[in-house]
Amino acid sequence: MNFSSKLLEDAVNEFSKLPGVGQKTALRLVLHLLNKEQEEVDVFGHSIIRLRRDIKHCTICHNISDHPVCEICTSQKREKEVICVVEDTRDVMAVENTSQYFGVYHVLGGLISPMDGVGPSDLFIDSLVQRVATTPVKEVILALSATMEGDTTLFYLYKRLKDFQIPITTIARGIAFGGELEYADEITLGRSIVTRVPYVNSIIK
Amino acid sequence: MNFSSKLLEDAVNEFSKLPGVGQKTALRLVLHLLNKEQEEVDVFGHSIIRLRRDIKHCTICHNISDHPVCEICTSQKREKEVICVVEDTRDVMAVENTSQYFGVYHVLGGLISPMDGVGPSDLFIDSLVQRVATTPVKEVILALSATMEGDTTLFYLYKRLKDFQIPITTIARGIAFGGELEYADEITLGRSIVTRVPYVNSIIK
Repeated sequence: MNFSSKLLEDAVNEFSKLPGVGQKTALRLVLHLLNKEQEEVDVFGHSIIRLRRDIKHCTICHNISDHPVCEICTSQKREKEVICVVEDTRDVMAVENTSQYFGVYHVLGGLISPMDGVGPSDLFIDSLVQRVATTPVKEVILALSATMEGDTTLFYLYKRLKDFQIPITTIARGIAFGGELEYADEITLGRSIVTRVPYVNSIIK
Repeated sequence: MNFSSKLLEDAVNEFSKLPGVGQKTALRLVLHLLNKEQEEVDVFGHSIIRLRRDIKHCTICHNISDHPVCEICTSQKREKEVICVVEDTRDVMAVENTSQYFGVYHVLGGLISPMDGVGPSDLFIDSLVQRVATTPVKEVILALSATMEGDTTLFYLYKRLKDFQIPITTIARGIAFGGELEYADEITLGRSIVTRVPYVNSIIK
């Protein structure tokens, strides 16, 4: 592109480094910001800089937090003996949004993926094992994505945790609520027949 | 959404003010920035703040510029007596990318749009009339979008400029190169038949 200004070009180049943002979208966003008040743009810029500089990760569960220990880990209302293991902070938010879970979390910071060069030592797996070994834990729920990386990580975690003699569960897989059978893939449908549950158990209480 | 951190929430809210960016996309972008080095994120944040603070608009053509008069207006190679009138800086970039135009520009800063409360006095129209009145001008090319707002602005500019006895032209409308007749809309196809040109004139020299 043919920029009339170096400042404009710099800002567009920075925006187009974001995932899913090309040069044309970047230019649109930058011109949008140019039409805003100086103050608003300052708030935007500083919120990004401050975020990266000041944000912390909870020393217990590794979730993003403003404090050394996050609000969920310090809350008196949460059951500390049930740990839900998730990939990242987005999954914590997804589970929290259901309002169906009252235990605590453990954020792995990713999934085992040999293709991307991510091994077990790159994730917070040792600290999970440590947590299970040193604090009273009643159940570990593995809530990982149903992908190849998720399954690999699931299996690895199971191997590391199985000797502790505590229940290790995974979230239920099956046909989504509102999902139609004819559009479900065969693996999901097949597994959901094999792992069928008594009707009375399937009713939400 | 249920954020575990105020800093995260602030940054996501700022991003989701951008056009076409919802909360989920904003969260994805923010988490992407969180994985970057502090230095990279600082460059990103400051490029936005600096852009808004330091950018100037050319005092002659109102295009975005780092200097009081832009590079096109100061260039010795550009024909100063031909003015191409465009809506905004993106259109300047689009025309520049064609490498087919060697005159100068006049950026209106928008189009007349009563629906959005934009009247002629909100645009750089008076300064265009001033420019035509006080400097030698051989031709004014009106290169505006083929929308209702574009046509309204076109007609208004024509009324303001017609008494100066200089050629006022608009960019050619018709079937795009590579366009197939059967997919063209009737208005474009109809107009392109009515305003047909001798074949020899249509060959790019």
